[in-house]
Amino acid sequence: MIFMSFLSILARRRDGQVHSRDEIQELVRGATDGSIPDYQLAAWLMAAYLRPLSFEETAELTLAMAQSGEVLNLESLPKPWVDKHSTGGVGDKTTLVLLPLLAACGLTVVKMSGRGLGITGGTVDKLSAIPGFRLDLTPEEMIQQAQRIGCALTGQTPRLAPADGVLYALRDATETVRSIPLIAASILSKKIAGGSETILLDVKCGSGAFMSDLAEARQLAETLEQVGLRAGLKVKAEITDMDQPLGRAVGNALEVAEAWNVLSGRESGSFTEACLQMVGDVLAEVGRAPSHEEGVEQARAALQSGAAAERAEAWVVAQGGPAGSVQAPEQHFAAAPAQLDVTTSSEGWVSGWSARVLGEIVRDLGGGRKAKADPIDVSVGLESFIRIGDRVERGQRIARIHAAHPEALPAVAARVTSAVTISSEPVPARPFFLERP
Amino acid sequence: MIFMSFLSILARRRDGQVHSRDEIQELVRGATDGSIPDYQLAAWLMAAYLRPLSFEETAELTLAMAQSGEVLNLESLPKPWVDKHSTGGVGDKTTLVLLPLLAACGLTVVKMSGRGLGITGGTVDKLSAIPGFRLDLTPEEMIQQAQRIGCALTGQTPRLAPADGVLYALRDATETVRSIPLIAASILSKKIAGGSETILLDVKCGSGAFMSDLAEARQLAETLEQVGLRAGLKVKAEITDMDQPLGRAVGNALEVAEAWNVLSGRESGSFTEACLQMVGDVLAEVGRAPSHEEGVEQARAALQSGAAAERAEAWVVAQGGPAGSVQAPEQHFAAAPAQLDVTTSSEGWVSGWSARVLGEIVRDLGGGRKAKADPIDVSVGLESFIRIGDRVERGQRIARIHAAHPEALPAVAARVTSAVTISSEPVPARPFFLERP
Repeated sequence: MIFMSFLSILARRRDGQVHSRDEIQELVRGATDGSIPDYQLAAWLMAAYLRPLSFEETAELTLAMAQSGEVLNLESLPKPWVDKHSTGGVGDKTTLVLLPLLAACGLTVVKMSGRGLGITGGTVDKLSAIPGFRLDLTPEEMIQQAQRIGCALTGQTPRLAPADGVLYALRDATETVRSIPLIAASILSKKIAGGSETILLDVKCGSGAFMSDLAEARQLAETLEQVGLRAGLKVKAEITDMDQPLGRAVGNALEVAEAWNVLSGRESGSFTEACLQMVGDVLAEVGRAPSHEEGVEQARAALQSGAAAERAEAWVVAQGGPAGSVQAPEQHFAAAPAQLDVTTSSEGWVSGWSARVLGEIVRDLGGGRKAKADPIDVSVGLESFIRIGDRVERGQRIARIHAAHPEALPAVAARVTSAVTISSEPVPARPFFLERP
Repeated sequence: MIFMSFLSILARRRDGQVHSRDEIQELVRGATDGSIPDYQLAAWLMAAYLRPLSFEETAELTLAMAQSGEVLNLESLPKPWVDKHSTGGVGDKTTLVLLPLLAACGLTVVKMSGRGLGITGGTVDKLSAIPGFRLDLTPEEMIQQAQRIGCALTGQTPRLAPADGVLYALRDATETVRSIPLIAASILSKKIAGGSETILLDVKCGSGAFMSDLAEARQLAETLEQVGLRAGLKVKAEITDMDQPLGRAVGNALEVAEAWNVLSGRESGSFTEACLQMVGDVLAEVGRAPSHEEGVEQARAALQSGAAAERAEAWVVAQGGPAGSVQAPEQHFAAAPAQLDVTTSSEGWVSGWSARVLGEIVRDLGGGRKAKADPIDVSVGLESFIRIGDRVERGQRIARIHAAHPEALPAVAARVTSAVTISSEPVPARPFFLERP
């Protein structure tokens, strides 16, 4: 019966007709319980790639996938329930800063994160650099922890949105990942299953992101907002730059250390400002600040008072990490054995600092994965000391490599040098926010 | 390795890029040996449905599928080696007439045929109405028989073009059957594997055919010719009418009897003329007749001399059927136990005689299949005594039902009546050939 009726659903997608709610629910039910064979789901996914779902259809798919497993009930936690999601980029440790910062500002953040693949890192991999840090919290543990400290983060669990797991694995094996409606449904279904109401979506755009085309990033941002609206979520989508790496560090342990430095006030700069802007957006969105600007000031106060660092410390300890590591990360995280500074051989203004190339270098150093099952080395990575628009002199240090083996260093240094472009004319700094609604 | 490179082939089809010969060969090899998983093949098939293959790509696919198994070597048989294929229609017993008629005109015809599904019958099903007739000849038996009598016909064997079997089954399960390039490759690959050089393709168009839209039928005919050319075949594609049933009989045993009546000169009319025209086309195409008209006359002579009937008799006996059945089919084929004449209740000119409805009736009587594994009753069917354009009087017999059970007859008679439309104004006869190149 299901077999027969799925064929008609498949034919309707193929012909670009509009799916009813019932059809979408049947698809998701059949994907979850295995009653629709993989080859039919695969054909549907390719048809949906080439005949994209409308906002309404995508919202129905999102809701059906969210309801395909457990849905976290956050009723015992104080509102507002917020979440933050990034489409992934090189050096993107924003979640590590925002989670305790939002909690310190009185919001509740219960979050599931993924592992990294390719050049973009995953929050779960970064946090795995903290000795003892647990990333397998049960839904019950998540809620108990958020009751105590306002935030919790875990790896993905098949108990939430299992249909997304089935469909994502098939998309990955059938070259149908890059469909904007399917991406939106995958992201938002997990957010709904995670119980959040308001979501800040950071759509990365540039050579070091999944999308390098601004028009495509805009389409994803708009789809996320429109589908979120129809699925009963408040979604604020921002498009941010990923043509140069985010912040200073690229690499798992290095990025956690940078995030803790930002939270503890030991480090400041454009990445810190970007985090404060984002928190300001969330506080204004949920009505905890009368304006974006006042939201930014609340966030800055939480940073300067030490409240954010305290919250990060409580978070690390709650999930099994060592006490004191937020104030002194270098004493707790393994350092890579081989290090080398990279200097320029020319002078001028930095006009390009390829996030893509730097991401590839860190992946190849062992800090990222080429295939899903690859192990990673959390200690390796890069520190970047320049940004687009900076003036550099000959012989100036632009980066520091952290590697597992010294023999790798010379070749890596050459690749780092190839990632930078120096102009003889002044170059404007590149803005972080490309589009903010 | 194959897994990884098939993903790039899949992405190229998805994006409408042109496949190389190597890519097509890798696809066909992976489909044949099972190394490409079904879900990836299914995604490729949907992408190929929505991003159709070019003539060149279709020719490469055709050749690769033809070479995926054995290829019959007809070198021991006299040239020309011809084949005839119909896309299927209601009452289409043309193959049964053409095979011995072409052989009687000195051509060699070695043919594989399929079983029927839905409202269009299959030649294998029709021939199974002949007691003892073998449809499981081996390639070796086919060639030996063709050496003796010039023709042989068998059911499909997985030894020839096995890739087509794999891909066709997946197309059937993924709503990707109706793709003109995939249809063309499926048809022509089996013809090439069967060893033929010149092929007459009868593309049926109308309510009782796979395609009812003339533009679509034209596109299939053109694709078959263009792909055939590129694959080294001589293809002559004709578009013929399937809005009314072909000839008099619809139903397996009834159709064999009609074909034998035509070959023996006991029956003549528009269907006989259509067969003679087709044979004339083939004889002119292969250079055995100086013109189409002279080809038709050669065919008529083979019919009138009894040579065609003799060849049919030799064919039936060679494949295990009873001697004498071509001259007296009614003595050898089982008759359906219940029969009823259907008459009109109005007078005028026949303006419609729905091949689709009549095909559905015969299928529902048990003469066809709704699902692939359904058994069929070869004795049931319909005889039609009118054609579009005919004048009919009130009470005139228009059809005769042959059923397994008398209780079915009244309801079937009402359905037959619903298939005819009578006009008060004269209506022109409907031509059989809609387009001939």
